Amino acid sequence: MILFPRAVVYPPVFMTGNRTWAIPEGYIPEDSIATKPELISHETVCVLNTEAEDATVEITIYYPDREPVGPYKKTVPAQRTRHFRFDELEEPEPIPRGQPFASLLESDIPVICQHTRLDSRQAENALLSTIAYPV
Amino acid sequence: MILFPRAVVYPPVFMTGNRTWAIPEGYIPEDSIATKPELISHETVCVLNTEAEDATVEITIYYPDREPVGPYKKTVPAQRTRHFRFDELEEPEPIPRGQPFASLLESDIPVICQHTRLDSRQAENALLSTIAYPV
Amino acid sequence: MILFPRAVVYPPVFMTGNRTWAIPEGYIPEDSIATKPELISHETVCVLNTEAEDATVEITIYYPDREPVGPYKKTVPAQRTRHFRFDELEEPEPIPRGQPFASLLESDIPVICQHTRLDSRQAENALLSTIAYPV
Amino acid sequence: MILFPRAVVYPPVFMTGNRTWAIPEGYIPEDSIATKPELISHETVCVLNTEAEDATVEITIYYPDREPVGPYKKTVPAQRTRHFRFDELEEPEPIPRGQPFASLLESDIPVICQHTRLDSRQAENALLSTIAYPV
Repeated sequence: MILFPRAVVYPPVFMTGNRTWAIPEGYIPEDSIATKPELISHETVCVLNTEAEDATVEITIYYPDREPVGPYKKTVPAQRTRHFRFDELEEPEPIPRGQPFASLLESDIPVICQHTRLDSRQAENALLSTIAYPV
Repeated sequence: MILFPRAVVYPPVFMTGNRTWAIPEGYIPEDSIATKPELISHETVCVLNTEAEDATVEITIYYPDREPVGPYKKTVPAQRTRHFRFDELEEPEPIPRGQPFASLLESDIPVICQHTRLDSRQAENALLSTIAYPV
Repeated sequence: MILFPRAVVYPPVFMTGNRTWAIPEGYIPEDSIATKPELISHETVCVLNTEAEDATVEITIYYPDREPVGPYKKTVPAQRTRHFRFDELEEPEPIPRGQPFASLLESDIPVICQHTRLDSRQAENALLSTIAYPV
Repeated sequence: MILFPRAVVYPPVFMTGNRTWAIPEGYIPEDSIATKPELISHETVCVLNTEAEDATVEITIYYPDREPVGPYKKTVPAQRTRHFRFDELEEPEPIPRGQPFASLLESDIPVICQHTRLDSRQAENALLSTIAYPV
């Protein structure tokens, strides 16, 4: 793999982050009071790619009582961020709501991952977030 | 200990994580407005095991003013996730509500741990979460 | 320093954690709707000491526009956890409410620290938490 | 670079932290019910500088579908903390509300960073926080 860093332009290119990230907590609430799409209960993995080339990302979903499912394939372009909602993962299959899961994200180049949930099962939102675990 | 990795099947087997994890914050609220089990105030440790064999997990609970209690023994099967609620730990004794505690989790193989609390003492939920500290 | 580990009793003694921890975020809300002490807005550092001897802890508070204040001295006994509320720190001086601050915690033996805030300025609680940064 | 540590005064000077920090999650809610400035929805990066000299900080903002923007230049004086609101970054351009972004913070000396969001789109606040990722 040959890198052509765009170091003469701003921002400088960093080899930043890690190739594998784990998020043991996962849960997409079954219902939601909100109707605006951005306020409907959801769970997100935010990926930052500061490199000069695109990152190909594969997400595997782990369950309590059945085999892992994946890979869910995504792209995070060079020097971009993408925030993936777990309730919008479709292939190979959607993640069921109201059930615990965990996820492992693998990238072909270093990225940084953060996990966030918005819970709008009730009138007021609740939020959680943490940097994922760099394996 | 002999590993028989299932590397020919998806997902690949990773030596992923850490054997010891600490969670200094712990508190199970005494009351709860909610009646649905998944909305009653609770505190959780989410464990992800990406390995090819089962993980045997031992949790020790630390208190402000008395001896630690444990081990609470749990299993996280190979390539599975388990989300353990602290208010459902029974043996050797339940954790009292409304009192601070901390926990240390030890596993015989590497796992990844995340800590989450749902607080429903009032009409609306509050959430917190963080990756536990890999000791 | 001579250690007399209590390794023959449960739980085993670990050299667990780090001696210095940083929490850049700090803010004690000025008001609170709640009247129960445990529901009044507060900010906490939770310290877990898994060692066989007591930890002597010194907290320094950093401000945006004046000199740091401290040390606030605390003890976390052997194999105990203590959850310190920033609004209850008294000596050398209380932390003013409604102003940003940061904190650095130093211990003479390894401990683990987690940061939590309960915000009850409005009818419903909000929570945040993160493992502190091991410096 | 020559350091003149103020080690004879309290608090002692630490080489504490990291020069590069990443926050993959970023989102400034579009609206807010609150009217008090400190309760209006906002996203913050809290920086702690425990060193004996000022830190010059450069923040770069990454977007899903366009080039990164920056640097946003800030100073964190010696032995001070500064909590920067992303909705108050002005030069080279404000961050649009209601859109996902990510941020990378680089400092010329080691600092520690924590990420916090207050979401007041609804009657009650929601909070999230995590130590940023030390790259």
